[in-house]
Amino acid sequence: MNQRVVIGVDFGTLSGRAVVVAVEDGSELGSAVLEYPHAVLEKRLPSGAPLGDAWALQVPQDWREVLRRTIPAALADAGAAPDQVIGIGTDFTACTVLPAAADGTPLCELDGWADRPHAYPKLWKHHAAQGQADRINALAAERGEPWLPRYGGRISSEWQFAKALQVLEEDPEAFDRADRWIEAADWIVWQLCGRETRNLCTAGYKGIHQDGYPSPEYLEALRPGFSKLLAKLEHPLSAMGEEAGGLSAAGAALTGLPEGISVAVGNVDAHVTAVAARAVEPGQMLAVMGTSTCHVMNSAVLGEVPGMCGVVKDGIVPGLWGYEAGQSGVGDVFAWFLRCGLPPEYLAEMNERGIGGHELLTEKAARQEVGEHGLVALDWHNGNRSVLVDHDLSGVLVGATLATRPEEIYRALLEATAFGTRTIIDAFERAGVAVGELIVAGGLLRSPFLMQIYADITRRPLSVSASPQGPALGSAVHAAVAAGAYPDVQAASAAMGKVRRNAYLPDPRRADAYDALYAVYTELHDHFGRETDALHRLRRIRTASRPVSRR
Amino acid sequence: MNQRVVIGVDFGTLSGRAVVVAVEDGSELGSAVLEYPHAVLEKRLPSGAPLGDAWALQVPQDWREVLRRTIPAALADAGAAPDQVIGIGTDFTACTVLPAAADGTPLCELDGWADRPHAYPKLWKHHAAQGQADRINALAAERGEPWLPRYGGRISSEWQFAKALQVLEEDPEAFDRADRWIEAADWIVWQLCGRETRNLCTAGYKGIHQDGYPSPEYLEALRPGFSKLLAKLEHPLSAMGEEAGGLSAAGAALTGLPEGISVAVGNVDAHVTAVAARAVEPGQMLAVMGTSTCHVMNSAVLGEVPGMCGVVKDGIVPGLWGYEAGQSGVGDVFAWFLRCGLPPEYLAEMNERGIGGHELLTEKAARQEVGEHGLVALDWHNGNRSVLVDHDLSGVLVGATLATRPEEIYRALLEATAFGTRTIIDAFERAGVAVGELIVAGGLLRSPFLMQIYADITRRPLSVSASPQGPALGSAVHAAVAAGAYPDVQAASAAMGKVRRNAYLPDPRRADAYDALYAVYTELHDHFGRETDALHRLRRIRTASRPVSRR
Repeated sequence: MNQRVVIGVDFGTLSGRAVVVAVEDGSELGSAVLEYPHAVLEKRLPSGAPLGDAWALQVPQDWREVLRRTIPAALADAGAAPDQVIGIGTDFTACTVLPAAADGTPLCELDGWADRPHAYPKLWKHHAAQGQADRINALAAERGEPWLPRYGGRISSEWQFAKALQVLEEDPEAFDRADRWIEAADWIVWQLCGRETRNLCTAGYKGIHQDGYPSPEYLEALRPGFSKLLAKLEHPLSAMGEEAGGLSAAGAALTGLPEGISVAVGNVDAHVTAVAARAVEPGQMLAVMGTSTCHVMNSAVLGEVPGMCGVVKDGIVPGLWGYEAGQSGVGDVFAWFLRCGLPPEYLAEMNERGIGGHELLTEKAARQEVGEHGLVALDWHNGNRSVLVDHDLSGVLVGATLATRPEEIYRALLEATAFGTRTIIDAFERAGVAVGELIVAGGLLRSPFLMQIYADITRRPLSVSASPQGPALGSAVHAAVAAGAYPDVQAASAAMGKVRRNAYLPDPRRADAYDALYAVYTELHDHFGRETDALHRLRRIRTASRPVSRR
Repeated sequence: MNQRVVIGVDFGTLSGRAVVVAVEDGSELGSAVLEYPHAVLEKRLPSGAPLGDAWALQVPQDWREVLRRTIPAALADAGAAPDQVIGIGTDFTACTVLPAAADGTPLCELDGWADRPHAYPKLWKHHAAQGQADRINALAAERGEPWLPRYGGRISSEWQFAKALQVLEEDPEAFDRADRWIEAADWIVWQLCGRETRNLCTAGYKGIHQDGYPSPEYLEALRPGFSKLLAKLEHPLSAMGEEAGGLSAAGAALTGLPEGISVAVGNVDAHVTAVAARAVEPGQMLAVMGTSTCHVMNSAVLGEVPGMCGVVKDGIVPGLWGYEAGQSGVGDVFAWFLRCGLPPEYLAEMNERGIGGHELLTEKAARQEVGEHGLVALDWHNGNRSVLVDHDLSGVLVGATLATRPEEIYRALLEATAFGTRTIIDAFERAGVAVGELIVAGGLLRSPFLMQIYADITRRPLSVSASPQGPALGSAVHAAVAAGAYPDVQAASAAMGKVRRNAYLPDPRRADAYDALYAVYTELHDHFGRETDALHRLRRIRTASRPVSRR
């Protein structure tokens, strides 16, 4: 038989993954992964040139290698032939952005530029442009720029404009030499079909595109010459699910796929997961839960939700307003707690039973009733993205006694992240944007105990993504739409997406008990997030007292 | 040679200790310890009769055994003969209080009473009279009883009246049968000299004696019949350092000491330590630091310090106002943190190097500058004695990030207890009672790192007790005064007490840095201690949600 398949490729932080998917029903037939040979450049360039604090770069050739090696391997894994493939879709971390020549060549690959840090792609977690972001926000607030409320009142240092401004200020030659300033999500599509496209999702969420980019006057006021960025960005935007073009001869040579098959426009990993998990109807909030959590949701309504990351018309699926929000530490916070240690008898039990710390603490924590630990934590160990948009906050734990056990603190941290999600949901609803259902994807799905906590605390039915390859499946769905196999993203999502509906339902008794703890969380949230600057003072004390070598 | 010696006997929570001390210079010549055979009765009586929650009783015969066995052993250890001994002094935990017959026989030793829990001595940490204490406080506040401010506005459930009221309410026959209601500190002296005395220290700090006991009208309003307690207490009070009498024939038979030598009046372990550590001048605050901390200090000035435990005229040394304050969790909080666990690599290092967790964490924490951890904790894991007098508070930690290490949290807890001491000192000074020097005794002296933190944070020179047997040495000093070897307690303390003056001096640079952290501590202290009831709500949630079996 000659089943039609599509390929989705997900470019993550440390690796890329290709999945071969049946067009008809979304069956995942085979997959392959490649870790980026250069991983993340944080200390120095491949040439040895040192990088500053909080830098994070990547190497474009690593991404091409993913295409070259994982696609044939995934087809082999699926037992499928290249001529069964009717389309390819991709998604990327974002904002991961690079300067390029007019033909798409990354600046770092041009002669004489390999030693210049600013010639490389800046990975989403490049955090060295905070000063630029602060000025972007201050000036936008001062001038009342109309786009600012669409981003919850604050532009992130991770996004395109902050990163571009850092290039202009620190390496103006690199800024000038770059004909294009482009998301990796769009650049990778360019490698496949040989023509530049710009997708509406990254432009909207990471490029401050709201009926156009920020005005030249604003950009010049920010820094003379910065309005030149607009020409490097300018390009028609493509709707999500559109075809970017046919696979080019070079793309075919790179991937081993037939020339001319459909290539879908680029996409963002979190957003494309909504399509894979069938979270495309208004009010279905997708939470991609891993080290951090990204929330995306569609709504027919435009609301300016304080502290959200962004709202973009047609940003996730055409025809709806797409919202994004986030929590900057979730799984990372749980992992931190384990790194701080466990009692020797716990370690012995883990060893004896061959289980991990998360498993043991979950087992012990699950034996208690809601509230029995008497603890509430603030989950801000990595700052707060939504709704406070304040990365200088830090973690808080209240209620400890001499009888407090590690599993109780652990559970309080799990609950704190769920209270954080509920805080976001409450902010949406207060802004008139209804949230009806929570759909979870990502690695933390592994913990049924955590999922039940989220259902109970948010008082909402919780559905779970039923695909192990959320983003890659979403890219494959987009490939099918681009290839014309389905009339639109919604129809393709319905046929190919995978969700287990109502996998967890809130228990009213537990939900009531959690409400009392949530009231304490909210009090602490507002006190430490809005009423006192104690956490900021502590951060300043920490920075000021740390010897330079440890800053 | 025939050196004159005195014997001090310290009755602790789990054991009694006798020390043989040279009258001339306080040299500690020998000692012996006996663990109480019955330790603390918390679950049931020796007969098997069960006890309620939070009960803590002791067995008087255990205390006699200490006299019988440790005194000869200590003399043997010292190589001293009984006829060298000119006096004996004792100190006790307090308030440890018992009902007795008119001749001093403990109620529990009378025929037919061995099965009655209320016939036994109630140890200081018997916490089952909280309801009674609450009513004592509410009524005293309502009636404006003049003694209430002398106790920082609150009588403890650990003290004589709360415990006696519990007896009256729960076993009125036992209350009626008891001719005497007496501190163990005075009861043990009765065993030695054959006559009842009452010392001013326990009467003042634990018996609400301020120019007399609470009025019969107040006691009757509290509970009809409760004024009968006054007759069980009534007795002239003896000044500290007075002779209670000569050693009786029975006392001589019990201890092996010569009949007729001086027996000093009773004393409290913490307060008597002030004499041993030469903390007898106005403004010298002694901190006895162990699982918890007790502060005692003399002053020429009477101030009503909010949240202190008590102020008693002549309470520690004759002629001065004696103050007591306390922190309910200190070493206990550090031990709790270690119980919560450490990273496996820390445990491996401890094992390899043969050191303990406190040692390793101290070593690691000491490498950091003040404030480098960016953390502040509230040391309320066991509640707050002074200055908030609120045992339902709990611990708080703010400022944690994904980079926070265990030694940083540990250091924040050490610092929190020092901030707690500074809060007490500040309260004294605001009430017009000057605090000039901190003198530390107790087990936590072991940590020079902790001592330096206290000096830096309190901005005061810190002296340390130079005797390993603080309370027992203090009792020996009192014995020497009672025997007439010195004219008064101060003179005896100067000759026999042992202190290393200015062992730690505050470093101005570190002290300045700590001031910034202390400002955050104070903000948190006032917020969680006075402005919000969040910690009380959490405790209520905890109690209410805990299954009955775990309450």
